[in-house]
Amino acid sequence: MTISEKELKMEESGFIFSLEFTVRDYECDLQGVVNNAVYQHYLEHARHEYLVSRGISFSMLHDEGTDLIVTKVEIEYKYPLRSRDRFVVRLRTEREGNVRLIFIQEILNIPDYKLIAKARVTGVATKNGRPVSPSALTERLGLK
Amino acid sequence: MTISEKELKMEESGFIFSLEFTVRDYECDLQGVVNNAVYQHYLEHARHEYLVSRGISFSMLHDEGTDLIVTKVEIEYKYPLRSRDRFVVRLRTEREGNVRLIFIQEILNIPDYKLIAKARVTGVATKNGRPVSPSALTERLGLK
Amino acid sequence: MTISEKELKMEESGFIFSLEFTVRDYECDLQGVVNNAVYQHYLEHARHEYLVSRGISFSMLHDEGTDLIVTKVEIEYKYPLRSRDRFVVRLRTEREGNVRLIFIQEILNIPDYKLIAKARVTGVATKNGRPVSPSALTERLGLK
Amino acid sequence: MTISEKELKMEESGFIFSLEFTVRDYECDLQGVVNNAVYQHYLEHARHEYLVSRGISFSMLHDEGTDLIVTKVEIEYKYPLRSRDRFVVRLRTEREGNVRLIFIQEILNIPDYKLIAKARVTGVATKNGRPVSPSALTERLGLK
Repeated sequence: MTISEKELKMEESGFIFSLEFTVRDYECDLQGVVNNAVYQHYLEHARHEYLVSRGISFSMLHDEGTDLIVTKVEIEYKYPLRSRDRFVVRLRTEREGNVRLIFIQEILNIPDYKLIAKARVTGVATKNGRPVSPSALTERLGLK
Repeated sequence: MTISEKELKMEESGFIFSLEFTVRDYECDLQGVVNNAVYQHYLEHARHEYLVSRGISFSMLHDEGTDLIVTKVEIEYKYPLRSRDRFVVRLRTEREGNVRLIFIQEILNIPDYKLIAKARVTGVATKNGRPVSPSALTERLGLK
Repeated sequence: MTISEKELKMEESGFIFSLEFTVRDYECDLQGVVNNAVYQHYLEHARHEYLVSRGISFSMLHDEGTDLIVTKVEIEYKYPLRSRDRFVVRLRTEREGNVRLIFIQEILNIPDYKLIAKARVTGVATKNGRPVSPSALTERLGLK
Repeated sequence: MTISEKELKMEESGFIFSLEFTVRDYECDLQGVVNNAVYQHYLEHARHEYLVSRGISFSMLHDEGTDLIVTKVEIEYKYPLRSRDRFVVRLRTEREGNVRLIFIQEILNIPDYKLIAKARVTGVATKNGRPVSPSALTERLGLK
């Protein structure tokens, strides 16, 4: 697949952000593959970079009295990542009900774009510990 | 709840193993709570200690040519853990189809046993990269 | 060595606090041994637990406007730790000049008390970002 | 400083390799700064990438029966790194005696190249657990 074919495929599938990584040796465990927990780090870092790309930072949200909290994570592991593998994390967002914001995320290896893992991460905006409608947030993210 | 009430509750609910932890400061992130990814470390460590308690170690399995691989993780986060919190991870196991082994896991704080998080982790035994019936494994774990 | 011989040895050597750990599988890396960086986690956790044992917590210090910051770490690695190894981290403290607090730390395996690693960690108390005499701190720690 | 001035400065100081990083939120701890242990991950990753740039990988070394082991780490922390900070890790190498290979490493922030931390990491090549002259290694690294 050429780059433009990949970009096309990304658009078709509704993905709106992607970030490239390389596996670092310390992320691998006894079995010689990236430890399962480290995938959550990759997924989180991609989400935070996406939010920053939309002008949203956690510290800013926090100063406005709003916290974005993960309430549920589902990850399917298809193929392992190994030392020095290159990969991309891409994502798209959905709303669910009044208060939940969903991140659909995929990890694809480079250069052949094989699906390594896919995830569905549910976030909730809270104010003083209570869920609130993340309207300010979703507007900035272009979600209705 | 007294200890014996807790043990009773654990038996009733089918949980067969539990392990106690204390949050270490380096496991907390910017928001002052345990980072979401660290829960997978807690869950994994409890699973490995459970397997060891049944006479199964990863290195032994590996030497027998069998690897136990996580294919899916679902975690619901109910309440955050903070610096120095004490908690217990408990688990029970189920079979699903011929090749899948399910770990139902809960994280409960100490001393009031409030549910902090619950998880469903799917594992598959593989031999030379292919899923196999984990019969040797499930027998040792007392699963039919 | 019996327990009492070990305790004697600990007293003679001036060590004033020790904490027991077990290696968790996720702490091991590609080479099948505990990753070098993880030793800093062990050392930090032992220091924090020591401070708590003396009635000092980081949050309390912070609320009093004082932060304890590590300015230098020296670690000598003698033998590797492997999956499920048990070990103890012990420590003693020294003052250096007016503002520096030194932690001498050793990691010893269990049960034979072989030296796995030794470390010298330099901390400084700061107030509004400037080093201050850690007198309140050192008094509570029994250092002149 | 312009890029070329920086490159000049790097040459003058003998540094032979540099790698750029951005702080990821999960690397920060309770105090809102990058945890001390994470610096060892940054330093290790830069060393491994440097070795790869010289055609040396750990797996290759291992297959040749040689392991490169860290025996000592000294890190001085000058200024903290915070969420999303950009920085560079640069390094140069020295020999010490017959068996020791020294990595001098510095972490500098971007864009003003302020010194964040400096480190001296001692490595030893081992064959079957015994230190050996790392001649094959040092030749490839251009060290006499």
